Amino acid sequence: MVLVAGTTAIDTIQTPDSAPRECIGGSAVHFAYAAALFGPVRIVSIAGDDFPPDALRRLEARGIDTAGIRIAPGKTFRWSGKYLADMDHRETLATDLNVAASWEPEVPPAWSDTRVVFLANGSPRFQRAVMAQVAAPDIVVCDTMDYWIESERAELDALLREVDGILMNEDEIRMYTGEASSIRAAQNLLSLGPEFIIVKKGAHGALLATQWGVDALPAYPVARVCDPTGAGDSFAGGFLGYLGAAPSIRDRETLKRALARAACVASFNVEDFGAARLESLTAEEFQHRVREYARMLSIG
Amino acid sequence: MVLVAGTTAIDTIQTPDSAPRECIGGSAVHFAYAAALFGPVRIVSIAGDDFPPDALRRLEARGIDTAGIRIAPGKTFRWSGKYLADMDHRETLATDLNVAASWEPEVPPAWSDTRVVFLANGSPRFQRAVMAQVAAPDIVVCDTMDYWIESERAELDALLREVDGILMNEDEIRMYTGEASSIRAAQNLLSLGPEFIIVKKGAHGALLATQWGVDALPAYPVARVCDPTGAGDSFAGGFLGYLGAAPSIRDRETLKRALARAACVASFNVEDFGAARLESLTAEEFQHRVREYARMLSIG
Repeated sequence: MVLVAGTTAIDTIQTPDSAPRECIGGSAVHFAYAAALFGPVRIVSIAGDDFPPDALRRLEARGIDTAGIRIAPGKTFRWSGKYLADMDHRETLATDLNVAASWEPEVPPAWSDTRVVFLANGSPRFQRAVMAQVAAPDIVVCDTMDYWIESERAELDALLREVDGILMNEDEIRMYTGEASSIRAAQNLLSLGPEFIIVKKGAHGALLATQWGVDALPAYPVARVCDPTGAGDSFAGGFLGYLGAAPSIRDRETLKRALARAACVASFNVEDFGAARLESLTAEEFQHRVREYARMLSIG
Repeated sequence: MVLVAGTTAIDTIQTPDSAPRECIGGSAVHFAYAAALFGPVRIVSIAGDDFPPDALRRLEARGIDTAGIRIAPGKTFRWSGKYLADMDHRETLATDLNVAASWEPEVPPAWSDTRVVFLANGSPRFQRAVMAQVAAPDIVVCDTMDYWIESERAELDALLREVDGILMNEDEIRMYTGEASSIRAAQNLLSLGPEFIIVKKGAHGALLATQWGVDALPAYPVARVCDPTGAGDSFAGGFLGYLGAAPSIRDRETLKRALARAACVASFNVEDFGAARLESLTAEEFQHRVREYARMLSIG
């Protein structure tokens, strides 16, 4: 059983090939669709009373428990952005926190037995508050962003001493550590507490740093990236979804296999707007891609 | 038997951690040391009478035939550059062509039977002149750079119709094709003639585009990059050296295996200044890294 605490959102996404399009999104939604490929998922989040009930039903249809999404009077969190031609860079046009501004995350008491927890990007204070509401998790992984690294450094340092793993992108981990090399930056962060550091490099794949060394895996090559929104959260969902269903967690091979699933899920995420591709993805399609990815990486 | 036509140089290299250092370099030298891991190599190049005879002896000691290096009166080609903190970007401080300015490449007649040919970065007119002097090669691969894409486009287009493969970095292939996606850019170039396109992404690995699809492989993770000079040429040397010794060439698996060897050789190249690490590299050290790399990519 995997739990994610993060945002549910209504995103307005503009790409070089398309007019602005409104999508159900948010870190918790992308994560949950990805992790649901491996087993049941629980969402802790907040949405406004404008959040479409149908969106909740579609999540439930994939085995995602939405009982932890509090529906508050007001508007759902909204993000609006525009991707540049290379699809690697984007411009945020607007961020309206709306009901998320006054959110204090509450894990339903019946969910305090969850074993695998993902603390999606958010204030480290909130992330620690979620963690405190889960009794004895096997594994807790967090995300963060430049804003928290700059404004809540001490709280983030404290969080890092408590979690098992963290995901960051290259800019974030370089900012956090002051190291120009992502590999050395990840090794550096390991010494602060977590058992593993994942550096997300988008179209260039990811790094996994553990006490056993540094592993690099490429992204699954996607010729037509439609919309990268939520790719990092779906990556985290693939990673923790796989770990949630794995017999053991704390070994290099299992973590690497989880990273490979993460890369495959994320490659689907970018093929359509929002989480649309993940919503319709079948177990067969996913397994087929994992096999293709493994074949690509077979160089013996 | 593998032949490379390219530069021999005296490089002056400055890195964030070190004062300027003088190294024997040039595309042909880095390529040759890498390809020599797999079998004999022939160099077609030009050097000045200041080129240290000891540098030639050290090449010969690795099974590299230097009979095609013409020693001309005057100074050897010199390049001087400075790497920035991220080691991905560099500033060229000076380029002095010296004797290379009046070079007309000549393949020794006895070498016209060479089966595997690498046309290192240079004027596409010279690259075609070298090609014309090899009777019936099995495979010809070229490199190029932004300068030729901008100034000799027609000649480069003609070269592309004649070669079997080309290596480019991401900026170059995007400039050449006008495509923002490296994957689509590579697919696009395939339609101009070559059987395969390799996109070199430095620390992010490489892409291989063929009629059978696009494969991505990561770089072997190196925590302490000492000097990236010549990494791309050593990558090409590992790739073509492997193909020169392979029983068949024109299938996806062999090309991918060659790409994996290329990644491993390049990871050694960056561990010391110039080609120093490649000069001392043993077959055992290399095979050990290839096995480590294969294990890293095993995600079944």
